[in-house]
Amino acid sequence: MKIVIAIDSFKGSMTSEEAGNAAKEGILRALPDAEVIVRPMADGGEGTVDALAAGRSLRRAAAPVTGPLGTPEEAKYAILDESIAVMEMSAASGITMVPKEELNPEKATTLGVGEMIADALDKGVRSFVLGIGGSATNDGGAGMLQALGYDLLDHAGNPIPVGAAGLAHLDHISDEHVRPELASCSFRVVCDVNNPLTGERGASAVFGPQKGADLDMVRRLDGWLGRLARVSAVYLAGKGMYDPDPDYPGSGAAGGLGFALRNFLGASLEPGVELVLDFTGMEEIAKDADILVTGEGRIDRQTVMGKAPSGIAGLGRKYGIPVIAFSGSVTDDARYCNEHGITAFFPVLRSIVTLEEAMDNDSARKNMADTAEQVFRAVSAVLE
Amino acid sequence: MKIVIAIDSFKGSMTSEEAGNAAKEGILRALPDAEVIVRPMADGGEGTVDALAAGRSLRRAAAPVTGPLGTPEEAKYAILDESIAVMEMSAASGITMVPKEELNPEKATTLGVGEMIADALDKGVRSFVLGIGGSATNDGGAGMLQALGYDLLDHAGNPIPVGAAGLAHLDHISDEHVRPELASCSFRVVCDVNNPLTGERGASAVFGPQKGADLDMVRRLDGWLGRLARVSAVYLAGKGMYDPDPDYPGSGAAGGLGFALRNFLGASLEPGVELVLDFTGMEEIAKDADILVTGEGRIDRQTVMGKAPSGIAGLGRKYGIPVIAFSGSVTDDARYCNEHGITAFFPVLRSIVTLEEAMDNDSARKNMADTAEQVFRAVSAVLE
Repeated sequence: MKIVIAIDSFKGSMTSEEAGNAAKEGILRALPDAEVIVRPMADGGEGTVDALAAGRSLRRAAAPVTGPLGTPEEAKYAILDESIAVMEMSAASGITMVPKEELNPEKATTLGVGEMIADALDKGVRSFVLGIGGSATNDGGAGMLQALGYDLLDHAGNPIPVGAAGLAHLDHISDEHVRPELASCSFRVVCDVNNPLTGERGASAVFGPQKGADLDMVRRLDGWLGRLARVSAVYLAGKGMYDPDPDYPGSGAAGGLGFALRNFLGASLEPGVELVLDFTGMEEIAKDADILVTGEGRIDRQTVMGKAPSGIAGLGRKYGIPVIAFSGSVTDDARYCNEHGITAFFPVLRSIVTLEEAMDNDSARKNMADTAEQVFRAVSAVLE
Repeated sequence: MKIVIAIDSFKGSMTSEEAGNAAKEGILRALPDAEVIVRPMADGGEGTVDALAAGRSLRRAAAPVTGPLGTPEEAKYAILDESIAVMEMSAASGITMVPKEELNPEKATTLGVGEMIADALDKGVRSFVLGIGGSATNDGGAGMLQALGYDLLDHAGNPIPVGAAGLAHLDHISDEHVRPELASCSFRVVCDVNNPLTGERGASAVFGPQKGADLDMVRRLDGWLGRLARVSAVYLAGKGMYDPDPDYPGSGAAGGLGFALRNFLGASLEPGVELVLDFTGMEEIAKDADILVTGEGRIDRQTVMGKAPSGIAGLGRKYGIPVIAFSGSVTDDARYCNEHGITAFFPVLRSIVTLEEAMDNDSARKNMADTAEQVFRAVSAVLE
């Protein structure tokens, strides 16, 4: 029997690898002869770098960058196999880098994202995986483009100021000074929102308020992003490239950074869980399994809506393989998961404990092993 | 698929029937076409009368009796199918009927047990199931025998006083005035201890102290029970009956009541779980099941040592049927159950809750159903 385990981290309790190895230990107690493969799993959030790095070399890197409000910062990222950069936009232009009272999406810039990418280009990297959650910015990726050598110019041919407000002056775009390495680069972007660039579901209206925008500011921001879209369309048309669709799902991610990444850097915008599955070759490993095992800290209705176990559930459905999920707890609406590829789910709780006791790393790993053991004992008994 | 459910009550939370019906509900969600049979289960403790009464008429009865220290009391018992009395010795001579400071095993008598039996004889009952836990007495069943008409006499032919101390005067026994109906009666006694009547593992040494005896009193009590054994041997030999073995396992139960029941009333002393299984015809129902389901409030090492699930586990082993057990919680040493017929066990906890929340009847039934559903989803998936 071949069993493939890919469990997301139990946040604050177990890493994906710890959870997976604990489940493996329990399964082997029940089925000593089973072939049990543990793979790290993540959905683009915590633990994603570790999941992507499985079986690859990992080198930590740091780039000096301009923070979202202009302060000098250091953005950390990872380089896998000396050739693939795994980055978080939030490491350079993240909302947590700015004190709440100073948040200002009119001024905030993605310059740092471009500088981080440029740093990797300097190190010879040509392949990028970029997470774009948690931005402080609403500049449509203008800062990133500027840092990579795109000239964003006003009608007099002068560079526009950085920050969303600078887009008010945007008249045309030139790639005369753009980093030439970009032509040979590939960008895969982890993007789990499907918002368009502008409008009532756009970046400014939906995400602006949490970055400090009031209603008037949202209107201004939305107008500036609209201007970016129109000027970009003219630029791209001049290059013989396709018309940029500002309504393409994810264009509004990270204050419109999704729009710039897709249309200027040719990035694919991919749900995190699918990107992780594809990047790690999970389908190839899982497709001939007899049982798939997944899980995350809590199983609820959201679990099968883009969270890590949904990817494993999808493979289970595709290949007709039962999927067993483990979690710290389950909610009433978890039953929804049964209709979406999770054959059965099991909380790993063994007795009445406090949340703190349940999340203790040793306890959690023990409970995972013990629960997996009993589930696979039941499963193997009926197979006999 | 035939599934037979026999779960003990979750004390303070669910009756056996509630637990079983909840499990059935969950199983049918997973396996709508399964044949699922719910049977009550108990181990001789709480819920035993309900388990024995399954499928039979039940009438409540009450007998005026003499309490362990002579006070007038009312002993409640049940009559099944108008013909079988189900009684607890503790209803007539129980330790909880006496204030702790008044406990006195030298004086306490089982007269009330005999009166309760006599009450049932008057009602035409000839079959008895008698639980003998929780006694306040150490009189070797002398009081019970006296109430049923046995003359326990001193050397002058006068009746000895009631209570263990009276046995000091016991010289011979006469059945001249014994209730004649006893000849056509059968007694099955629920007995989960295997202590002999006397000696260091006997009734007085092991159970005397908790009934109020100090070391000196234990020695006196033990001597009096030894005297009862010797005088009984003479009486029984005179009747051409077998030699009473005071070391027969269970003879020391309930202050030696086991000895009197076995040797004077021909009672069988049976482990509670086996008696319940036999009385309810569980083996016949379970033997062709595909899966057996059992459980109790907490699963630990003790679970397979004479508690209700051990009976189902035994049937599972005998007929090669997987046994799934559910519980409120499981302990670390529960794994021991896996080696003794419990294929797999599952706590029904779904999230972090307090003990009070977990034991709430509605929550417990819901959690039981939800847990059973997921387990049987997993089981049925691998069968497909």
